[in-house]
This record gives sequence, C-alpha cells and structure tokens, in this order.
Amino acid sequence: VADPAELRVALFGTGFMGRTHSIAYAILPSFFPELPLVRRQVVVDVTEDLARRGAHQFGFAEWTTSWQEAIARSDIDIIDIVTPNDSHEPLANAALAAGKHVLCEKPLALTAAQARAMADQAKQSKGVAMVVFNYRRAPAVVEAKRLIESGAIGRVLTFRGLYLQDWAMPDGTPWSWRFSAERAGSGSLGDIGSHVLDIASFLVGDVVAVAAAAETFVPKRSLPGAAGHAAVDVDDCTIALLRFQGGAIGTLEASRFSHGRKNHLSFEISGTKGALSFNWERSNELNFYSAADSSNVQGFRTIVMGPANPGGDALWPIPGIGTGYIESQVFQVGEFVRAIVHGQEEGSSFAHGFKIQTVMEAIAAAAQNGAWTPVSTDETK
Amino acid sequence: VADPAELRVALFGTGFMGRTHSIAYAILPSFFPELPLVRRQVVVDVTEDLARRGAHQFGFAEWTTSWQEAIARSDIDIIDIVTPNDSHEPLANAALAAGKHVLCEKPLALTAAQARAMADQAKQSKGVAMVVFNYRRAPAVVEAKRLIESGAIGRVLTFRGLYLQDWAMPDGTPWSWRFSAERAGSGSLGDIGSHVLDIASFLVGDVVAVAAAAETFVPKRSLPGAAGHAAVDVDDCTIALLRFQGGAIGTLEASRFSHGRKNHLSFEISGTKGALSFNWERSNELNFYSAADSSNVQGFRTIVMGPANPGGDALWPIPGIGTGYIESQVFQVGEFVRAIVHGQEEGSSFAHGFKIQTVMEAIAAAAQNGAWTPVSTDETK
Amino acid sequence: VADPAELRVALFGTGFMGRTHSIAYAILPSFFPELPLVRRQVVVDVTEDLARRGAHQFGFAEWTTSWQEAIARSDIDIIDIVTPNDSHEPLANAALAAGKHVLCEKPLALTAAQARAMADQAKQSKGVAMVVFNYRRAPAVVEAKRLIESGAIGRVLTFRGLYLQDWAMPDGTPWSWRFSAERAGSGSLGDIGSHVLDIASFLVGDVVAVAAAAETFVPKRSLPGAAGHAAVDVDDCTIALLRFQGGAIGTLEASRFSHGRKNHLSFEISGTKGALSFNWERSNELNFYSAADSSNVQGFRTIVMGPANPGGDALWPIPGIGTGYIESQVFQVGEFVRAIVHGQEEGSSFAHGFKIQTVMEAIAAAAQNGAWTPVSTDETK
Amino acid sequence: VADPAELRVALFGTGFMGRTHSIAYAILPSFFPELPLVRRQVVVDVTEDLARRGAHQFGFAEWTTSWQEAIARSDIDIIDIVTPNDSHEPLANAALAAGKHVLCEKPLALTAAQARAMADQAKQSKGVAMVVFNYRRAPAVVEAKRLIESGAIGRVLTFRGLYLQDWAMPDGTPWSWRFSAERAGSGSLGDIGSHVLDIASFLVGDVVAVAAAAETFVPKRSLPGAAGHAAVDVDDCTIALLRFQGGAIGTLEASRFSHGRKNHLSFEISGTKGALSFNWERSNELNFYSAADSSNVQGFRTIVMGPANPGGDALWPIPGIGTGYIESQVFQVGEFVRAIVHGQEEGSSFAHGFKIQTVMEAIAAAAQNGAWTPVSTDETK
Repeated sequence: VADPAELRVALFGTGFMGRTHSIAYAILPSFFPELPLVRRQVVVDVTEDLARRGAHQFGFAEWTTSWQEAIARSDIDIIDIVTPNDSHEPLANAALAAGKHVLCEKPLALTAAQARAMADQAKQSKGVAMVVFNYRRAPAVVEAKRLIESGAIGRVLTFRGLYLQDWAMPDGTPWSWRFSAERAGSGSLGDIGSHVLDIASFLVGDVVAVAAAAETFVPKRSLPGAAGHAAVDVDDCTIALLRFQGGAIGTLEASRFSHGRKNHLSFEISGTKGALSFNWERSNELNFYSAADSSNVQGFRTIVMGPANPGGDALWPIPGIGTGYIESQVFQVGEFVRAIVHGQEEGSSFAHGFKIQTVMEAIAAAAQNGAWTPVSTDETK
Repeated sequence: VADPAELRVALFGTGFMGRTHSIAYAILPSFFPELPLVRRQVVVDVTEDLARRGAHQFGFAEWTTSWQEAIARSDIDIIDIVTPNDSHEPLANAALAAGKHVLCEKPLALTAAQARAMADQAKQSKGVAMVVFNYRRAPAVVEAKRLIESGAIGRVLTFRGLYLQDWAMPDGTPWSWRFSAERAGSGSLGDIGSHVLDIASFLVGDVVAVAAAAETFVPKRSLPGAAGHAAVDVDDCTIALLRFQGGAIGTLEASRFSHGRKNHLSFEISGTKGALSFNWERSNELNFYSAADSSNVQGFRTIVMGPANPGGDALWPIPGIGTGYIESQVFQVGEFVRAIVHGQEEGSSFAHGFKIQTVMEAIAAAAQNGAWTPVSTDETK
Repeated sequence: VADPAELRVALFGTGFMGRTHSIAYAILPSFFPELPLVRRQVVVDVTEDLARRGAHQFGFAEWTTSWQEAIARSDIDIIDIVTPNDSHEPLANAALAAGKHVLCEKPLALTAAQARAMADQAKQSKGVAMVVFNYRRAPAVVEAKRLIESGAIGRVLTFRGLYLQDWAMPDGTPWSWRFSAERAGSGSLGDIGSHVLDIASFLVGDVVAVAAAAETFVPKRSLPGAAGHAAVDVDDCTIALLRFQGGAIGTLEASRFSHGRKNHLSFEISGTKGALSFNWERSNELNFYSAADSSNVQGFRTIVMGPANPGGDALWPIPGIGTGYIESQVFQVGEFVRAIVHGQEEGSSFAHGFKIQTVMEAIAAAAQNGAWTPVSTDETK
Repeated sequence: VADPAELRVALFGTGFMGRTHSIAYAILPSFFPELPLVRRQVVVDVTEDLARRGAHQFGFAEWTTSWQEAIARSDIDIIDIVTPNDSHEPLANAALAAGKHVLCEKPLALTAAQARAMADQAKQSKGVAMVVFNYRRAPAVVEAKRLIESGAIGRVLTFRGLYLQDWAMPDGTPWSWRFSAERAGSGSLGDIGSHVLDIASFLVGDVVAVAAAAETFVPKRSLPGAAGHAAVDVDDCTIALLRFQGGAIGTLEASRFSHGRKNHLSFEISGTKGALSFNWERSNELNFYSAADSSNVQGFRTIVMGPANPGGDALWPIPGIGTGYIESQVFQVGEFVRAIVHGQEEGSSFAHGFKIQTVMEAIAAAAQNGAWTPVSTDETK
C-alpha cells in the first residue's frame, strides 16, 4: 500500500485506549528505530467534536466521522479499533475484508461465536490481526515467561490471578456501556478478567475446566446527563476455579468492587522448584523464589526490571527508571508492527482472542449452572 | 476441684503445639494477672522419654505415659490435647466425661460426624470445651473484627483467604501422620485451611455453599527411619469458592506446596465502604482502606498493632515491639481460662469446631463431585 | 518568533535525557492539549552519525553538528540542553544571549560561580530559563508538597533523602565523563544528590548548613575502547547532615555504590502532625501518616496516585495505571512551555539551579574541611 | 553458690524490661533445655506494691524493697538490672563486688567514664557481666553477621542505621526520667541510638569518628500526677555521620519524633558484592541482595527466618511462625547463662557496653562542637 518504510494508521475511537495507542505510535521509533514509522493519519469518532479533538490531542493529520470512508482509503494500512466491545466485530470484519491490518482492543468480541467468526475471517485475510493484551508485554511478565520456560520454577502446580479495581463502587460511576451485556458482552469478566486469562494462557497453558460464581452488587445505576436509571446486567465481580491442561489448578478473581485495589492485576505461580509473583501496581518488579538458593537465603527476590530483562535493550539504561503503562502499549504496538513486517502473527492473534473468549464463556456458564464446566476446544478454521 | 485461684493442667502431647501451649501457661500471669494461675502439673506422651523430656522443657512437675491416669486424677482441672487428630475424639470425650475442662487443637475431629458427637458431649458436660484457633486471637485479626462490626468497611462483598506453606515439597519432608486420611482426616484442608475457615466464620459469617478442587501432588513419601514408602491419601492443596450467608462470595486456598510462602495465612475482605487485609507473616500489621478518607489520600493504611488495638492493654507499651506466635497462644489460653472462670464458652467452642468441620466436609465433597455443594446446617443437640 | 500556537525546539544531545525530552515533546498535546505544540525541529550532536540517528529516533525534522547554527536560526524558540555538565554554561549563555528559551539538564553547572553567572544572565534575558528537576514533578511529590502546605503533617522536624544507584560498582561501568571533576563538576553529589537537594528545597525549605563525608571507592577505571585507565576524581558516594532554615534537621545520601538500589530516590519527612515518605522505584505511591487518624487505625497509607492527585486531570482515568519516568518529563516540559506562554518562570528557574549548586558546594567543602559549613546566601543579581 | 543445674536470679525493676526478662527466664528451658534452669527467686522494686505485683505477674517466689538485701543473699547467683540508667552503676558495682553475675540493661551508664569504671570492675570480678542488646540476637541480625563474615556482600562500603519511634510527640507522653540528663544520661541517643551503635559495631566494626546534630523539639513537659512542667534536657532526636575503622562511612538517626515509625530499628549495609537490610518492625525478615545472582534475577531477597537460620534449632519448626520480642530476650538471656556456664563473656560484655558509650559520647560532643570528632580509643584495664 504505502512506502514499505512507513505505515499509516486510522484510529477508531478517542477514549483512554485511543489515547494510549496514539502515544505508542508517536514514540515507537525511540524504542524500535528499526521498525517502519507509523503515521497517525486519520481519527474516527462518532461526533465531529470528538474526532477533531482526538486528532489534535493525539497528533493525527485528519479526522472523520465515517469509519466506512477510513476503511475505504487505499493509503491506510492499519485499522486500530478502540471502540466499545459491540462494534469490534463489524469494524474488524470490514477492515479485514478490505485487506487492512487490524489491531483490536480486548475482549475480542461479545461472544465466543462472534470471536470465532472474527478469527476465521482473520485467518483467511491477508492482513495481520491482533488483539491487544498489553499487560503481558510488561518486561516483568515476559521475564516470568522466560524463567518458566527455562525450568526455573519447575512444573507449575498452582496459579492465582487477580484483577481488582474499585472504580464501580456504589457511590461511584454512573451507568455506561460497560454495564450492559448487549454492548460489553460481560462486566468485570471480559473487561479485566480477560487479561488474567490471557496471562494464565501465556504463562501456564490452556484452561480446560472451570467452576465459578458471579455477582452484580449494584443492579441499577443512574444515567449520566439524564433522569432515571438503567439496569446493570453484567457481573460486577466474577470468581472462578481453573483447571489447566498440564494438571495445575488455580483461582481467578475479577472485580470492580475491591476497595483500595486500583489497577491490581496480579498473579502468583507456584511450581515444583520455585515461584513467581507480580502485581501491575508495582509493574517494574517481578518477585521470584528459587528453591535452588541456599536454604539460609531462600526468599522472594524483588527484581527491579532493567537492561538485563526482556525488552531491556529497547528501554532505559538502568533499572528503576520507571516503566509504566505507556511502555506496555509501545511493546504491544511494536509486536504488531513487527508481525506486519515479518508477515506472521504474534501470540495474541485473533485465534488467541477467540480462545480466551471460550474460557470466558465457560466461566459465565459455570457461574450459572453451578457445576464444573469444560472449556470448548473448538478450533478456528 | 482446686484452689479457685489456681488451676492444674495435664498436657497430652509434647510436639510443637504442646510446646507453645506450655509457654502460654508459663507466662499467662504476665499478661493477665487477674486470671487464676495455671499450674503445669503433668505431661503425657506415648513414651517415657518423650514425656520426661517434655516435662523438663515445658516446666511440668510430673510426667506419665498413661492418659487414663491423668484424666482420673482429681487434682487435674484441664486436659490440653495436642496430639494427632485421630486421638482428639477419644481423649476429649474421656476428659469431658470426667468433668474436666478441655482445650483441643484444631481440626476438632476427623469427620463432621465425629465433631458433632464431641460438640454434643461438650454441651452436656460441666467442663468448658474449646478448640484452638489461635490465629484469630492476633490483635490485628481482632481489630479487623472490631472494624467490621463498627461498619468501617460497610457490607462485606468479597473474601479471599489463603493459608500457604511450602514444607511438604517433593524433596522435603518424609511421610508422617499428617499425610494419612485415617490419622489426620484431611491434608492441607484440615491442617491449615481450617484456620482460614475459622477466620472467615469469625469475620464474615457462615459459609453456605462451596465449589472446590483438591490435588495430591506427591502420591507417596518415604517412611522416616524405615525402608520403603507410604501412600499419601490426603490433599496437598485445596482451593475453593465460598458463598456466605449474607451474600458475600470468596475464595480459599490451602496449600503445603506454595514455594516461598512459609506460614502465609492471609486474607482480604472487601466491603462497600472499605477493605481489610492481613498476612500472618507480618502478623503485627493490619491493612485498612477506608473510602471515607479524602479522595487524595485514600490508600491502605499499614497499622502497626499497639496499645490502642485489641489486647493492647495486656501487651507491650508501644506498637512495633514485635508480637508473634507466642502471644497468639497466650491470648488463646487466656480466653480459655476466662471461659472457665466465667462459666461460659467463648467463640471457639466445640460447637464452633463442629461448624468448621461441616464446611471442610462440604469442600472435600465438592472437590469430589464437581458441583457447588451446600454446607450442612445440622445443629448440635 | 513562530506561530504563537506552536514552538520549535532544538535539542542539544542525543543520550538518555535527549531521548526522554523528545518523547515528552512528542506526546505533550495528549496531556496538555491547551498548550502550544512543540515541533521537534533540529537535533544537534557532535558527530553526523549521532545527530542523524537522533533525528530519526526522536522524530526531529533536521539534524546538524553545529550548535552555533542551531542557536542562530530565527525559527528556533527553544534550546534544550542535554549534554555533559561542562557544556551547560557556554551553551545556555549563548542561547540566552540569542533570546532563546532554555531548558537545561541538572546540575546547572560545574560550580556555584558558574551557576550564578548563568542565573544572572537568565534574569536579564527575555527567554525563559529552566533547569530540569523532573522527579519533583511526579504526582506523588507534588501531592506531598500540597499536603505539607495544607498543614497535614504540621511543622517539619526531620528529613531523610536518599538517591541510591549501583551501576558504578567495581566490576561495572568503565570510565566516562561522569567520573571526571573537570567535565561533571562532581560525582554522585551533582548527578543524583542534586535531585535530593531539589526535593528538600521544594518540600522543606532552604538548607543553611551542612556536615558531610565523601568517598571515592574506585580510584581509577578502564577507558572504554582504549588501553589503560583514567583516574576518578569525583565522589562515588556522599553523605551529609543538613540543617534547614526553619529548624528541621536531616540527612542526605547519594551513592552509585548501593547494591540492589537501582534508582532509589527516596525521602521521608516527619512533622509534628504526620509524616510522608516516597521512593521513586515505586513512583506511583505516596505514603502518608496522619496523627489525626483514630488511634487504632493510625498507619502509613499507601496512596496509589490517580485522578484525585496533582496532575491527575492530565493523566489516566483511574489510579494504578502506571505512571513512570516519561510522565515526569511530560510534566517537566509542560511546566516549561507553560512558563513560556505565561511569561513567568516556574519553580526550577536558573536562580533555583544556582541555589542548589550552592548547597552542593557547601557539602563538598564540608566533606573536605571536616566541619559544619554554612551554605552561601548570595543572591543572583 | 547453688546446684550447678540451676541458678537463682534477683530482678531489680518491674517495668517493661523486667517483664520481658522474666518471661525469658520462665521459658528458657523450652528453647535451651541443656542450660541450667534459672529460678525466679526475688523481685526488688522501690515500693512494696510494685515489688509484690511484680512477683505475682512475673512468677518470682519472693519480693523485697531492699536491693542491698537481695545482693547480700548467698543463694542468689544473678542480679538482673532493669532500673533507670542512673542506678546502673551503683547496683552493678555492688553486685559485682558481691561476686554476682550481672545482666544490665542498656545503655550501660550515664557517661563513658562511669561505663569504663563498670567495665574495669567487671574485668576484675569473678561474675559474668553483660549488657543487654537484645536486638542483635534476632535471627535476622545474626544471619546478617554470618553472611558478612562469609564474604557474601564483600567489603562494607556504607551503613545506614535508624531507630525511630514516635511515642514522645508533643501531645503525647508527660515528663519521665527518660527526659532527664541526670537520670538517663541522654535521650534518644542512649535509649535507642545505642542499639544502632551496637549493631553497627557487631556488623561493621569500630566507629572512629563522627559528626552530629541533636535537637530537643519539646523543651518542657507536664509532670505526671502533679501540677507544672519539667524541663527536657536530653535530645529528642540525634542524627550523625559515622566513619568506620575499615573505611566504610554511614549515617545514624535516633528519634522519638518520627511519626508513623513505631519501633523502627532498621539498617542497610552495602558492600562491594551485595547488600543487607533489616527493619525490626518486620523482625522475621532479612533482605539480602547478591551481585552474584544472574543479572536478570538480581534483587533483594526477603528471607523469612526459619530453621536454616541462626538460632533456628532452638526456635520453631518452620519459617514464618512469628518470632518477636520475647524470643530476642530468650536469646539474650540464653547467651548470658551460657557465658556463666562456660565462664566466658559473650559479645556484649561491659567492655563492649563501655565502647558503645564512648561512641555516644563522641556523638554528643560532635553535636555540640560542630566538627568531626574522633571516638576515644581508651581501653578498659
């Protein structure tokens, strides 16, 4: 389409995620100078005002309110979808049909069936399609992966994954699309639990069966800028037991009602030779326990990520500089662009997004039926 | 029986718990000078050597290998049972039948039926019968109770309770009675999970239904001081989902295979107005989050326990002196003696021990049957 | 010079700091859309290769090896100086003489006399001149400032400030300009201790007298890419006692030899009513203790920075997203551009840079003369 | 004097320290069954009421108000001095003159001259004389010692030692002997700073020169149970720079005015190959950083003390049980009794107490004279 040394992106949506993806495109060359430049070409949003403001703030050359127009442009290489969940499928399918590369926010879709259709289409399209799971890009999480693969903690026995927030507490936020099953698919499970499941998949392996409970603590919420209330028909909190392919067992918690936990994506993985733990609220740190240490000095090491850790060559000269959310999105976008250049999809392909969606669907079903529920093993075509 | 200003105790068992109870009796007057003195009168163990050594180390006047003889003595007021689980029922029943006060280590029994029989007998006997749940006596846990009752965290929404250890890892400990269903009843569930359930009951309320998974990671272990191996027929790790009477939901993990977690009895309780968290490995600290704080200074407070906290008048002059396991047993024994003096049983009566045993039994059943399982609501007679 | 809605910057230097400033310029509109855009116009470095690579990575339109040429350009508004310390004075003075706005990395100069001359010239020039002290821009540090000013911790009694790193350990880094008094002015004192002194000044007030010790643990280092060694004639570690204007006392430690401390800029400030502590390695957290809390729940709160804290409106929608070094530079550059727009210099003017340099000079003198040494109170003209 | 298998102690003083020493004697056989039993024979205090109550609470057989009488008794082997500082010298000297073994609380004396006289007399007496520095007995501190001696952190470069409390804040405690130079010798320096100096001496070596500042923040305090106020003529806070024999440098802070720090005795020791840190408020943990770890997993290990650490054989069966203040006094008393049995004085002899007092005196002098001050190297006779 364009100069091979450069790609052009159309951004669909100007919310928080649109903002962070834009920043990632803007500073990508500072981290990965070997990759093609991604020109921030056009922003799409539902009103002129939102689109115009997005273009200004995020450094895009143009804006429009017509997503069809953006997809139709031959000079656009990438469609970046950061809209509410119910629009992921139509937008991604249209973009893939037009031969674009697609980067789509999680969760991939509203249902596993929808996600499967998207993954099928992605397989058949020429564009690279990737779902955003930025947290797994954090150097500490990638170091955890490397240590597990090296055998540093032995065979994994147990997993505990939490994603806890508290912004949705009773006196808090009014109704939004995030509280609607029709628009979001699910509540805490898809919004934040999906990240836990992605990390569980990345670090431990496939989940094969689940038991679960889900609660909606606040059944209706005030409508913003309007009289009256709207019903909440998604989960405020989901908890689950997980059984993994390799024999490990684990727990998952996803809650928007966990006072004091602000963006607490954490995990602990215990194996036969050691253990790893991580908490995004201290995202520069990985905790590692090795039973190979001398018995008098065994303890969790708090490793401050730095040049010796994954991604360290792209990052800062010493550990402890402070790598945050922005860098996680730079790594995410970097992987996406690298996949475009090399013509191969990285780990968080649409097929992977579909797999995560099947686990989510099993958890939601288990919360309803009160029994251990197997995860569907359907494959994409 | 004796001078009202003093009681005499017979200790059954000279292991770790016998040691800590003995220390508690020895220093009780330093903490609770108003209580009767408990004379360490006689130690019972299975061999003369163990009993004699116990008497010396733990400061008892006499020793014997006959528990029947100890129970038969009219000058003994208290039977303190710190033997393996399978002997709890016969010893406690004999002691209660003889009109003694009984302090029994947790878990109360091998099965709920057995525990119920013990609770029934305790109800009909004149002695005070109490099961040891020392961790709930920690000032930080009692402060959590007080804050919850005062409404400081509002209505409880979620609970997470962990008790993680790592002493039973593959290359670790040989076979012992703790790995035998016949002698221990269960593995990690009864040994350490019972403490989590006690704290959940103490702080949140009754568990009404559970889902669970249990694993035995190491199916056989070498026999100590003998050739060959013995089978492990108890759980090395149990995880569960909990549904409470009041609507809260939660998770439980009890594992002896969690590398790096040494004696990690921890919980987090989230309510509509705040949250509390605690970890025994830092037993002097209670973490408290209040949504009533100004928005710019909301955060978990790390409260170092001191004179202003429960039990503070009995403890040290300033916070941070360092209150450990010994003090938890002093508080436990103090409550027991106070119950004897006042003729009323405190919170961890045998009836309570039976209730905890019914939850354990439901969890073990749920791990077998793969479905949410209600907790029996049988009452003691 | 340029369109009032936009400014053009020339960047002098393409090292780590050049990189972070460039990122800040690139994403400034995403944080502060109301400020003029800063066009990344031209990069200057000593070799064509460095300058060209810098322009590519950092998104600058042009590059050159002639700083004189860059200063002479009428379309350049801002000179951003991120070169070794010995060039700060000639570059800043030339830029100020040409009427440019100047942003200069810390420490401002090699000596107090040099810094004073720069501050004098800045006062007489029409450009805004600011020294980079990015760490004080962290929301947690600004919240600390706000809490102190509101009286939340009462009158300050004691201060402890540390900046500890470990990159310079014996088997580590070869010789560089940072180990040369001629090029760097001092070692750990100016490089990292200056940040502690800036924060002490920002939060507590003027330092009036000091006592100190300084050590050079490794007296010579291998020359990179060459045979032989070069002498180290700066401090590897400086420690000091501080006496503040208002009566508070404190300690300072700046070390490049503190194993395990990677970028540990930390402080604790204790007052008559409370205390504050902070550690850059956990830069999203401020710890606050209030003696006004009820006695049973007094404890350091760990406040995770978010929308309710300073800068929160420019940052992320919820706390805990993960704000790192990049954001600190965005805030720094934002203050600089705001100062240009409003025609007034913010807190870290060259006059302030001079003041910090006088404290550094007193500390270096005290380390030599072995006595408490007053800080010069010379004012800029 | 008595049965070699048992010793008899007279306790002088029934305050907090008297209480903790009594507990240690009571439970000593549970930890060190091989040592002679120490019979709690007689308590001495200034009023009958205090003495009688002490005997009851602490389990002593008798009480008296005459210390002379106690010293004169031939059946008493040990005099344990836990009275205010101004009585240490007369009591210890009388006890030593009577051939008793003496355990004396820190600081040893009011002045270095007084301490020297006591050390001289101890040298010439047949009794064992030891000063109580219980914090260095914590397993974590002894493990730090062992690691340093094994070379695990290489040559020590820097030390930082803090002992911070907040009980003496303005609205807090009324006047007591601790605020009187005549009775206490000094304030925070001797009361708590002495522990830091003991640990510095134990782990790093001799302090040879100091610089210091001291402040009295609250110059007068209300008299308890009486009208009016009394002057405070001791330091509320002392800070110092330390220069060690071997070339290391360091800082010390001792404060009773550090809000939020309750019993914060902490240190960090950085060497050429690693580092160690400790904080009594988490007394079961030692933090150890080893530069010998692989570069990607370097980090401070949080080691939870257990059987593999010093004293572990006497303590609990697994790490994390919770070892607190009581155990530190058990170890202290254990060392004292072991010294009596073996006829040799352990590390905290009166000669050591004198050495610590000379450093304290140098610090107090330095705070007055405003210059680096050498520590006297007088030896005891």
